[in-house]
Amino acid sequence: MAPPPPPPPPSEQPATAAAGAAEAGLISKVLIVMAMEAEAMPLVHNFKLVEAPADESTFHKGAPWLRYHGNYKGLHIDLVRPGKDTVYGVDSVGTLPAALLTYSSVQTLKPDLIVNAGTAGGFNAKGAKVGDVYLASDVAFHDRRIPIPVFDMYGVGARKTFGTPNILKELNLKAGKLSTGNSLDMSPKDEEMIRSNDATIKDMEGAAVAYIADMFSTPMIFVKAVTDIVDGEKPTAEEFLMNLITVTATLELAVVKVIDFISGKCLSDL
Amino acid sequence: MAPPPPPPPPSEQPATAAAGAAEAGLISKVLIVMAMEAEAMPLVHNFKLVEAPADESTFHKGAPWLRYHGNYKGLHIDLVRPGKDTVYGVDSVGTLPAALLTYSSVQTLKPDLIVNAGTAGGFNAKGAKVGDVYLASDVAFHDRRIPIPVFDMYGVGARKTFGTPNILKELNLKAGKLSTGNSLDMSPKDEEMIRSNDATIKDMEGAAVAYIADMFSTPMIFVKAVTDIVDGEKPTAEEFLMNLITVTATLELAVVKVIDFISGKCLSDL
Repeated sequence: MAPPPPPPPPSEQPATAAAGAAEAGLISKVLIVMAMEAEAMPLVHNFKLVEAPADESTFHKGAPWLRYHGNYKGLHIDLVRPGKDTVYGVDSVGTLPAALLTYSSVQTLKPDLIVNAGTAGGFNAKGAKVGDVYLASDVAFHDRRIPIPVFDMYGVGARKTFGTPNILKELNLKAGKLSTGNSLDMSPKDEEMIRSNDATIKDMEGAAVAYIADMFSTPMIFVKAVTDIVDGEKPTAEEFLMNLITVTATLELAVVKVIDFISGKCLSDL
Repeated sequence: MAPPPPPPPPSEQPATAAAGAAEAGLISKVLIVMAMEAEAMPLVHNFKLVEAPADESTFHKGAPWLRYHGNYKGLHIDLVRPGKDTVYGVDSVGTLPAALLTYSSVQTLKPDLIVNAGTAGGFNAKGAKVGDVYLASDVAFHDRRIPIPVFDMYGVGARKTFGTPNILKELNLKAGKLSTGNSLDMSPKDEEMIRSNDATIKDMEGAAVAYIADMFSTPMIFVKAVTDIVDGEKPTAEEFLMNLITVTATLELAVVKVIDFISGKCLSDL
């Protein structure tokens, strides 16, 4: 048996705290997936992330997807967003861009943990209020109705998220089930499915990000701040736009606290 | 000015008809995207395609996606399908797997043309009958309602397909607009959007495949065979399952005719 190799000289030791963390079993690489520029940019600035140049990107050049990266408190953070639709110029919200972007990012970046952060609608009947921040315990779809046995369950695609009891307790966040669909409004059929999903919050990306996270067996958590009350008096689109800026600041604070909590910890500590 | 290099000896000339076709400006590589095993396998056998081994795949190993390939009448054909959902064991129908599979396939295979073939619901009010085969002139989504200016149009995501007047005429196929959503059934809200999309046929993948084709600036055509009449008497799921086998045979014939027509032609000949 050969003797163990001597420790490397300081100059050859891992250059970043992130690399050192990985060796100790600590969470090293976090991928934050966000949908809207207004939600993402405060965090990009807060974490002092820099935009990855397009010519170094592994994303297809025809995709408007953007990546920002940097080191923060011993973690390597990649924050990705789907960017502006190349035809209509608005944020590429919804399940398709979220899933494609997450697939491409996880395949190349191999994160230890995926954080999908964003705004959501909340249900007053389940105790949600504007400005509340939730960690989703479960995710499912509410707009994939396939009334054939087994296909029906595939359509709903219910998944448990990665359990984070310590984050919930320490940061005093709310827990609730998340239901995902491609519409900002809610049709009667959507409402029926959301009730059947027992959801407290409703977004347009979560379950799609979870589908990809499961494909790669990567733990995933969902931080969602409530911009509008779906079962309230005001029209969703109006309330969403009115509260977007304020609630985005609340979301930013919550995500920073979650990332601060994650720093220096193992997955089992969350 | 140097003299032109002499022609390569026969042994160094392009080994396959497909490579030769590419040099002559002819369509060389066709990617066929299908959703269900029952729709795909007759074509795999008809074109004598072989399954690409998993260990040579560029697809992520956690994805159940399958690729079959081979040469047929001077074309290189790759036929891909999303495979069985790893949790529920049913065909991975719907927009997410179709978009992800198409993205991954186009990125690595760089086809000259994408053919999305499959079954669809048809509208009696627009002249569709069970067994009709359509080439979609336009695609759009009917379950992405975002009632904010510009976001609303992004949600619908209407796109023109690649124009194929000669295929339509020669093969005597029908032309109509295709509307895509993740549900097999049709809610009143879906119906409203489908009417607004002026659709004759309704499927669960088309507009998602078109989104990716546009991202890569790859021409795309949609061959859809009608399994059920959405505005008819019978429940969609029942009629769909009853007609799936028969209509799949019709679809197979139509796709073979389309591929035969494409063989030896340029894009501008279609």
